Amino acid sequence: MKWHEGDKFLHPQENRPIPEPGPNEVLLKMHSVGICGSDVHYWQHGRIGDFVVKKPMVLGHEASGTVLKVGSSVTHLKPGDRVAIEPGAPREVDEFCKIGRYNLSPTIFFCATPPDDGNLCRYYKHNASFCYKLPDNITFEEGALIEPLSVGIHACRRAGVTLGSKVFICGAGPIGLVTLLIAKAMGAAQVIITDLSASRLEKAKEIGADFTLVVKKETPQELASKVQGLLGCMPEITVECTGAQDCIQAGIYATHSGGTLVLVGMGQEMVTIPIVNAAVREVDIRGIFRYCNTWPMAISLLASKRVNVKPLVTHRFPLEQALEAFETTKKGVGVKVMLKCDPSDQNP
Amino acid sequence: MKWHEGDKFLHPQENRPIPEPGPNEVLLKMHSVGICGSDVHYWQHGRIGDFVVKKPMVLGHEASGTVLKVGSSVTHLKPGDRVAIEPGAPREVDEFCKIGRYNLSPTIFFCATPPDDGNLCRYYKHNASFCYKLPDNITFEEGALIEPLSVGIHACRRAGVTLGSKVFICGAGPIGLVTLLIAKAMGAAQVIITDLSASRLEKAKEIGADFTLVVKKETPQELASKVQGLLGCMPEITVECTGAQDCIQAGIYATHSGGTLVLVGMGQEMVTIPIVNAAVREVDIRGIFRYCNTWPMAISLLASKRVNVKPLVTHRFPLEQALEAFETTKKGVGVKVMLKCDPSDQNP
Amino acid sequence: MKWHEGDKFLHPQENRPIPEPGPNEVLLKMHSVGICGSDVHYWQHGRIGDFVVKKPMVLGHEASGTVLKVGSSVTHLKPGDRVAIEPGAPREVDEFCKIGRYNLSPTIFFCATPPDDGNLCRYYKHNASFCYKLPDNITFEEGALIEPLSVGIHACRRAGVTLGSKVFICGAGPIGLVTLLIAKAMGAAQVIITDLSASRLEKAKEIGADFTLVVKKETPQELASKVQGLLGCMPEITVECTGAQDCIQAGIYATHSGGTLVLVGMGQEMVTIPIVNAAVREVDIRGIFRYCNTWPMAISLLASKRVNVKPLVTHRFPLEQALEAFETTKKGVGVKVMLKCDPSDQNP
Amino acid sequence: MKWHEGDKFLHPQENRPIPEPGPNEVLLKMHSVGICGSDVHYWQHGRIGDFVVKKPMVLGHEASGTVLKVGSSVTHLKPGDRVAIEPGAPREVDEFCKIGRYNLSPTIFFCATPPDDGNLCRYYKHNASFCYKLPDNITFEEGALIEPLSVGIHACRRAGVTLGSKVFICGAGPIGLVTLLIAKAMGAAQVIITDLSASRLEKAKEIGADFTLVVKKETPQELASKVQGLLGCMPEITVECTGAQDCIQAGIYATHSGGTLVLVGMGQEMVTIPIVNAAVREVDIRGIFRYCNTWPMAISLLASKRVNVKPLVTHRFPLEQALEAFETTKKGVGVKVMLKCDPSDQNP
Repeated sequence: MKWHEGDKFLHPQENRPIPEPGPNEVLLKMHSVGICGSDVHYWQHGRIGDFVVKKPMVLGHEASGTVLKVGSSVTHLKPGDRVAIEPGAPREVDEFCKIGRYNLSPTIFFCATPPDDGNLCRYYKHNASFCYKLPDNITFEEGALIEPLSVGIHACRRAGVTLGSKVFICGAGPIGLVTLLIAKAMGAAQVIITDLSASRLEKAKEIGADFTLVVKKETPQELASKVQGLLGCMPEITVECTGAQDCIQAGIYATHSGGTLVLVGMGQEMVTIPIVNAAVREVDIRGIFRYCNTWPMAISLLASKRVNVKPLVTHRFPLEQALEAFETTKKGVGVKVMLKCDPSDQNP
Repeated sequence: MKWHEGDKFLHPQENRPIPEPGPNEVLLKMHSVGICGSDVHYWQHGRIGDFVVKKPMVLGHEASGTVLKVGSSVTHLKPGDRVAIEPGAPREVDEFCKIGRYNLSPTIFFCATPPDDGNLCRYYKHNASFCYKLPDNITFEEGALIEPLSVGIHACRRAGVTLGSKVFICGAGPIGLVTLLIAKAMGAAQVIITDLSASRLEKAKEIGADFTLVVKKETPQELASKVQGLLGCMPEITVECTGAQDCIQAGIYATHSGGTLVLVGMGQEMVTIPIVNAAVREVDIRGIFRYCNTWPMAISLLASKRVNVKPLVTHRFPLEQALEAFETTKKGVGVKVMLKCDPSDQNP
Repeated sequence: MKWHEGDKFLHPQENRPIPEPGPNEVLLKMHSVGICGSDVHYWQHGRIGDFVVKKPMVLGHEASGTVLKVGSSVTHLKPGDRVAIEPGAPREVDEFCKIGRYNLSPTIFFCATPPDDGNLCRYYKHNASFCYKLPDNITFEEGALIEPLSVGIHACRRAGVTLGSKVFICGAGPIGLVTLLIAKAMGAAQVIITDLSASRLEKAKEIGADFTLVVKKETPQELASKVQGLLGCMPEITVECTGAQDCIQAGIYATHSGGTLVLVGMGQEMVTIPIVNAAVREVDIRGIFRYCNTWPMAISLLASKRVNVKPLVTHRFPLEQALEAFETTKKGVGVKVMLKCDPSDQNP
Repeated sequence: MKWHEGDKFLHPQENRPIPEPGPNEVLLKMHSVGICGSDVHYWQHGRIGDFVVKKPMVLGHEASGTVLKVGSSVTHLKPGDRVAIEPGAPREVDEFCKIGRYNLSPTIFFCATPPDDGNLCRYYKHNASFCYKLPDNITFEEGALIEPLSVGIHACRRAGVTLGSKVFICGAGPIGLVTLLIAKAMGAAQVIITDLSASRLEKAKEIGADFTLVVKKETPQELASKVQGLLGCMPEITVECTGAQDCIQAGIYATHSGGTLVLVGMGQEMVTIPIVNAAVREVDIRGIFRYCNTWPMAISLLASKRVNVKPLVTHRFPLEQALEAFETTKKGVGVKVMLKCDPSDQNP
C-alpha cells in the first residue's frame, strides 16, 4: 500500500523484492495489519504536521506476522514464530533510549511515518528486538491490536491510573476505546466516556464503560459539570482523545485537584486553556508520543484473557481490497478495519 | 471482647457505658467485625512483639457499623450513614502524617493494639475522618473486609503491581488471598500462590489464582525454580505472607532482576537472607506496616464490583458466641470468621 | 497590618487583644515578617482571583517568632523556642491531607488569604504542628524566608530537579531567585534566568545564576532559541515565574523533550499555548499551589549553610513603619522587605 | 595489564595489535585509568563471585582517553575528542535496556569483568554510544573518576537523597567518599560517615563530611545509636559500603522509619538481618549493581565545578609501573591510584 506524491492515488498491489534481513533483523510473512487514522491521513493529505510524504511510502503499522528468516545475531526468535511488531525501533542508543524513553528518540525508525515504510505488505523485515513472540492463545489480530492498545497503555500509565481510579475519557474512537479497556484492566473503578456520536458510545458501553455521555453544545464548564454529576465526583484522571480545544478545556475543569490530564488526541497546534485553574489545583498536563515498553505487558495481558480486544475488529478485507478497506476506515463506520495479508490464512 | 491479663481468659459479654463522641468523632452501632490472626494472638499470648496487653483490652479492628451520633465538628457524616472503619487514626499531625504515610506515626491510635481498645462491641466511637461512608451496594461485611483488603492494597502498591505483572504470593491465608484479589484487580496477568495446605490453595484457585503450588520440602532455590517453571518466567514481584525464613529466601531467588519482594508476613526478628543475590540483581526488599490511604480506593473498587470478597467469609457468629468464633479462627478452618454485633440485623 | 474594605487604606497600628492558644496551638511573639507580592496585591486590590477581602484582614505570612505559651496538647514546643511559621495549616484531615498533599485541602487555614488573618502583628497564635523550631544557627529572618524558599522547593521538587539538571527560570523576582538557590542546592549544574530588568539579573548573577538574559522583544521561539544557545543544550526543566503568556510559550519551546515546565507565576486565566509541541515531546506542564512538606527540609538546609538566603533581604522596617515598607515593596526596589515586629529586638 | 590463570602473575607490558573499530565503535588512545578494588581482587584471586577469570584478561575500567578513529556509523564523536568511557555497554536491546536499566542486562559487555577485557592499555576500542565527550574544563583524570562517581550517583539516586536529607555512610573507602560527595551535591544537609580507620575519616572530613565516627567494638544497635546521637536524628538514608554483616544490621537500626538502606558494599552471600525491624518501619533495602545513566549528569556536574573530585587522586604511576600501582592499591594507602597510559602526556 503506497502513496505516490505526484498522482495522489494508491497503488495497492505494487510488487517489490522480498527484503533480506540484516544481522539483527527478521524477515516476516505478514498476516494482519490494522488501519489507523494516521494511515488514512497520510493517504488523503500526504502529511501529518512536520512529517511529509516525499516519495512513495508503504503504509501500515498495526501488524503481526510469522518469522520466515532470522538474521545472524538473532537468538530469541526462529522461523515459524508468530510475532507482534512494535513499529518504532530506535536506530541508535541515544540519551532517550538509555533512560527507557526510546519513543522520544528523534532518529527512531517508525513504520509508515515518512520516510520509513510501513508493513502493509506481504513480506517485511524488522528489527528483531522489536518483534515479540505471541503465545498460542493470542491470535494474529490480537497481536496487531497491541499497537493501538499500546497508546492506551502509555496514556493510562502516564496518567497514573490505578486501583479505584475514576477516569474521564473524551472521545470514543478506537483510541478512546482501548484507553477504556486498559483503564479498567489497571483497576479503574469507574470510567465515563464522551463523544459526539451515540453509536460510538454504544460500543463503549458494550466493552465496559460505566457511564457514557453524548456531547452536544455544552460549554467546557458545563461538560465538566455533567461528568462530575454522572460520576458522583471529579475524576482523578482525564484522557483527552479528540484534540479539540473545548474538550481540552473541559478536561482541565473536570479533573480533580492533584489529578492528571493526559493529551492523546492532537488537533490544532495553538490551544487556549484555563491555565490558572490547572496550575493552582495542581492538575498536571501530560502529552504522550506514541508509547514505549508496552508490548511485553500487552502480551501478558492478552494471554491472561483479562481484556478482550476482539470486539474492536469490525471489518476485514484481503490485502487486494486495500482501497476498499481504506475507504471504509475513512467513512468512520465500525471501529477497526483489518487487512489480511496472507492469502493462505485469512483467519483472525 | 476483652483480654484480662490476670486471669487469662475472655469476658465476651462485659458491659461498658456507651461512649460519647468528641467534636471530631462519631458514635457507631457496630454491625460486622472480622477476626484477624492478630486478635487471636493477643487473646492467646497477650502480646505481639513490643505491643503488650497490660490491662483489659477490647479486640477487633476489621469492622463496619452505622453512625448513631456525630460530634460537633463533623460535616461529612450523619446519623444513619453506614460506614467502614479505618482502625488506625493518627493522634497528631506529625512528620509522617504530613507526607501521607500516617501508618508510620508512632503515636497513632490503632484498634486492638494495646493499649487502644478495638471495636468488637455494640457501641463504639471513632475519629470521624477515618470512618468512610459505604454506598448502598456494599454490604457491612464487605465494609469490614476492607481492613484485610487494605493490607493487600498496600502490599501491591509498595510492590508496584501493574498491568501485566507476574506475581508470586507465598502463603494462602487470608492476607495471601486478598493480595491475590488485589494483584489481579491492579492488572496482574498471572499470579502464582504457594502454601503448605492444599485446601487453602483450592480456595486460592477458586478466587482467581492462575497457578498454585503445594510447598513440601524444597530448598528455597528449588521452590524459586518451580515458581519460575510454572509461570514460564521469573515474577517481577513477590509478596511474602508467611514470615518464614525459607520463604523469604525463596522470594529473593524467585524475583526477576529489577523487581521487588514485599514482606507482609512477620516471623522471627533475625532472618538470614541471600543479600548479595538480592543486591546485585537490584531486587528491592520492602516491608509494609499496616496500610494508609486504602479505604477510598477499596470502596470505589468494591462499589464497581470488580473484586468479589464475599467468598472470603466462611463463618458467622453472633457477638454472644465470640468465644466459639475465636476458637474457630484459632483452628484455622475456613478463611474469615465474622462476628455480628447487631442483634437486630445479622445479615452480611 | 489590616485592610479595610470601606475606606481602602491601611491601619497599621490597630490594637487587638492578645489571643489565647487552643490545645493544639502556640502563642507567638512575632519577630520578622517578610512582605510578599500577594500582600501588596491584597492591599492595593482587595482580592486575588476568587479570594476577596470582605472584612478587615491582617496581612503577612512569611514569618518567624518566639513561643510565649503552648496549648495543653503541645509537646514538641515550649516557651522560649524560636520558630518558623508555615502559614498553611489544614483544618481537617481530608483526602488531600491523608495523601500528603495538604496544600490542596480546600478548607485549609492560610495566613493572609481571606478570610484568614495573617501574622504581621505583635502577638499571634498558630497551629503548633505547623510551627518549626529553629536551631540556634538560623536567624529569625532566615526563618521567615523559609516561606518564599518553600515555593522554590515545591517548584523544583515538582519539576524533578536533580544532579546535573539544566534549568531555565523565567523571571528574577524573589520567587525566581529562591528557585535559583534551591535548584543549585538540589544539584542543578547550570541555571539560566531571564528577566526584563537587568538589575534584577545582577542579583541573580550574584547569588549563583550561571547565565542571565535580558528579555527584549523576542518571540517565544526566539527566546527559547537564545536560552538553548547560552546553555549549549535545551534545559530539562523550566520554571516559569512570571505568568506571562509569551514566557509560558517560550518555556514550552525551550524545554527538552521528556522534560517539565513548572508554572509558578500566575497571570491571566486563559492562556494560549503550543500544546501539540508540548504533547508530542512529552514536556509535562505542572502548576504549583503554594507548597507542602518543605519546612523541615528548608531548616536542615539552612542549618547546613548550604544556601545563603541572607542577601535576599534588602530592606528592613520596624512594624510601625509598615506603610513605608509596603510602599517600598510596591515600587519593586530591592528584593525582600522585612518588617521587624519585636521592638526589643530588631536584629536579623 | 593482564591476569594469567596459570602462572598467577601480571604481564603488565604485553603487546597486542591496535584494534580496528567496528561501525558503532571508536578507537581510543588511553590517557588515565584508575585502579579499582575489583581490579586488585581479580589480580589476587582470579574471581569475584560467579565471575571467574578463565583466560588472560586486560584489567581497568575507570578510564578516559582521546578518540583516534571513529566507526562508519558514528556521528557524535570525531578524532581528537577527549572522552570518558562508560565501561558497561549493552550487547543487545533486551528488556532491561528498553526500560532504561541496562546495567541489569545479563549479556552486557563490561570492561575487566571476565571474559571482557578492560582498558588499562594504550589503545582501546569501545562502543561509541558509551563514550562521552569531555568539555575542556574537565581533565582526563576527572573523566576517569566518573566511573567511581557513578557508583555514588546510582546509590544516592536509588536511595532518594534529596534536599535536606540526613545521610549515614558506612565505610570511607573510595566508594564511601564519592557517595559523600554526591550526597552533598544532591542537597543532603548532613552526612555522617564511619570507618575503622581514622585516617580515612580524615579524608572524609576534608572533602565535606559533617560528622565522622571511628567504629570500634560497638554492637550494631550501639553504632546506630551513636549515629543518631551525632546527627541529632535518625538519617533517612543509609548507604552501606562495607558489606559487613554488622554494618548492614547497624544500617537497618539506624535508618529513620520510611527511609532507605542502600547496599553498595558486597561481602558474604548470606547475611542475617533484623528483618522485622526493617519491615514494620518500612525501611526499604535496595542494592545497586554498578550504575546506569550517570555519565551525562556527572559530566554536567563536573563541568559546573560543584564537586571537586581531584583530592581523591593520591597516587599516579606511568603504565609501565602498573605492578607498583597495583601493590599500592592493595596496601590501601591513599584513595585513588591513577595509571597514566599516554607516555607523551602524564598530566592529570
